[in-house]
Amino acid sequence: MFSPEHVQAGVTYPQGFKAAGVKAGIKKSGNLDLALIYTQTPASVAGVFTQNKVAAACVSVSREAVKHGKAHAIVANAGCANACTGEQGLSDAKKMAELAAAELGVKSHEVIVASTGVIGVNLPMDKVENGIKQAKSELSDEGSKNAGNAIITTDTYSKACATEVIIGGREVRFGAIAKGSGMIQPNMATMLAFITTDADIDQTLLQEALSEITEVSFNMISIDGDMSTNDMAIVMANGMAKNQKIVQKDEYYQIFRDTLKKICVELSKRIAADGEGATKFLTIKTEGAASFEEAKAVSMSVAKSPLVKTAFFGEDPNWGRVICAVGYAGVPLDPDKVCVKFGDIPVYERGVGAKYDEDALKKIMSAHDITVNINLGNGDEEATVWSCDLSYEYVKINGEYHT
Amino acid sequence: MFSPEHVQAGVTYPQGFKAAGVKAGIKKSGNLDLALIYTQTPASVAGVFTQNKVAAACVSVSREAVKHGKAHAIVANAGCANACTGEQGLSDAKKMAELAAAELGVKSHEVIVASTGVIGVNLPMDKVENGIKQAKSELSDEGSKNAGNAIITTDTYSKACATEVIIGGREVRFGAIAKGSGMIQPNMATMLAFITTDADIDQTLLQEALSEITEVSFNMISIDGDMSTNDMAIVMANGMAKNQKIVQKDEYYQIFRDTLKKICVELSKRIAADGEGATKFLTIKTEGAASFEEAKAVSMSVAKSPLVKTAFFGEDPNWGRVICAVGYAGVPLDPDKVCVKFGDIPVYERGVGAKYDEDALKKIMSAHDITVNINLGNGDEEATVWSCDLSYEYVKINGEYHT
Repeated sequence: MFSPEHVQAGVTYPQGFKAAGVKAGIKKSGNLDLALIYTQTPASVAGVFTQNKVAAACVSVSREAVKHGKAHAIVANAGCANACTGEQGLSDAKKMAELAAAELGVKSHEVIVASTGVIGVNLPMDKVENGIKQAKSELSDEGSKNAGNAIITTDTYSKACATEVIIGGREVRFGAIAKGSGMIQPNMATMLAFITTDADIDQTLLQEALSEITEVSFNMISIDGDMSTNDMAIVMANGMAKNQKIVQKDEYYQIFRDTLKKICVELSKRIAADGEGATKFLTIKTEGAASFEEAKAVSMSVAKSPLVKTAFFGEDPNWGRVICAVGYAGVPLDPDKVCVKFGDIPVYERGVGAKYDEDALKKIMSAHDITVNINLGNGDEEATVWSCDLSYEYVKINGEYHT
Repeated sequence: MFSPEHVQAGVTYPQGFKAAGVKAGIKKSGNLDLALIYTQTPASVAGVFTQNKVAAACVSVSREAVKHGKAHAIVANAGCANACTGEQGLSDAKKMAELAAAELGVKSHEVIVASTGVIGVNLPMDKVENGIKQAKSELSDEGSKNAGNAIITTDTYSKACATEVIIGGREVRFGAIAKGSGMIQPNMATMLAFITTDADIDQTLLQEALSEITEVSFNMISIDGDMSTNDMAIVMANGMAKNQKIVQKDEYYQIFRDTLKKICVELSKRIAADGEGATKFLTIKTEGAASFEEAKAVSMSVAKSPLVKTAFFGEDPNWGRVICAVGYAGVPLDPDKVCVKFGDIPVYERGVGAKYDEDALKKIMSAHDITVNINLGNGDEEATVWSCDLSYEYVKINGEYHT
């Protein structure tokens, strides 16, 4: 899952998938900006989409495509979000699916469309069209890396992973590429995740698995609290592993689901760690809660606090800001029962600051990966949120990213 | 209300109030850090406090004091929040009230206590005691300026205002000092506001007026979305204007309430404008909403978005980020009916970006005060939130403010 070979293989690791990423000229930088992922046999498809009331045209088009239950391809561009573009935008998103469908010889409702980039600008359709043609001609087993790079925006690197598992004696493979970085928050984010698998699974179960897993993976990331117009996570399962088709919630479904969850959690962590301007990867774990929802609310409150985020950027063990954010999470709690640890060192318990070894704490604060453990002393439920710090670079990226 | 003389007079503008601010040695900087406000006759008192579950000791003590209905003094310190300090903290906060009461010859439950500063550190009680003695000796009609400076933390200036109004033929005066800056958000903030008036008004009506006004003033500020452990706004009304006592919701009550609202709104705006690292003062007005709550949710969503805040810092008319934040506010809306204006220039309407005069818009974006007008096209209610941008300086202040 973490090996360089797996990352390299990405979405083409499962059987029957090919990918490509090309320079269509949509990004001002001239970098790779159009990705195509193709499965030689039609795949069961599932998707989760942004909850933003102002959703991009591609979200509408892809929601409809997922409803058909089968997909043959994903076409995605970076550099232009095609959001807030009205009728023209909707027409362009449909056209993008049609162009890819025509090139690939499939139906247009079998093509998932995704866009990310600047809001309020129309897609340059001539460039999109040429890009799709070029991508089609470059589809290959080695195309995942380029596809991954073609969907990133302010990400510092492309996220990819892959793994395999045995289901009923057959090797079933999973692969994925994703982008994140800005506007990452609960209920999705500007986040695109494309997951491929050669598992044979009923479409309804696939959608159910993805929807449930999203709640404990993609929806547990917080970078800056903004929710994008363009988020989506898509899974295509083409059945080429020839496992006995998963049609009920049996042990094979569980194996499938667990593996899909591993992929989604891994992508989520990488997206959080590569948040805009991030210098720290923060894991905010809340235990001892009355419910998952309350645990999540506390972790999110801490993860989203700019004061907490800047403190970690400054490597300052400012537990006061953490307990303050715990206190305003909107969750019933007794401050005297709460314990906060940085790594394994208690910094707050029984209502007051704890005595700690300053050198040991300094070591924890200076690391890249930092875990904040919060115990509410109020139950058995827990939730983990992944986040990052808030740096000068975040302000630079977002203050100087001109429309 | 805005004249230099009024600001200078501050809390001592109404009859019978004296104030002082001294250097007790609590702030590391050695600046003014202990304030005392005294009324020669006991005043009706009202207060609103932080909703944070982790409230500082002074909040508990002052909540109890307000319940008694009468107050003679406010003693406040900056440099140490006395929050997360357990039993010792509670004992210290009570002691602080007792020390002030003893010096002034009043009852300790007639003294409001407030603290602001670092969380998790105990009050240096010897310094507090000496500071109270010194402040008592320096109480004067000219002491408001020092008192105002003694309660600020990362504020770049002390907030003060004063005004007068005729109620039933008598001149009634109001004065105020406040601090804000960090951790400013809905439902109060690290915000201290002390308001004095020589009006004669029933305590229950005073509390009702303050509570209602807080919803449209102090609770409509957002700087970074954090809610402090120490917030409070206190009004003392000592009756020395000798107006006919306000005991019901008549026209005199309305005049009183409107004037108190003016004071609270003015303080709120100044607190937002002096947000940590702020280079812009943002007014986010949402109209055409189905309810005040929905209008407020939309304004707050925009005001709290780091992407919106950094765009204003960069003077970039990035309306896409604004409409995106409108979309995830959790309010039912039709994006095609929404109109967004920067100043008086429409930038988004009917689902797409509007054509605008770039030079005119550039002029608006380069100003210090910027109004974002959002119309949801969905009703007659409105709400206004005051905020500021997110700059490098915010990260510097909060990343380098070490515990």
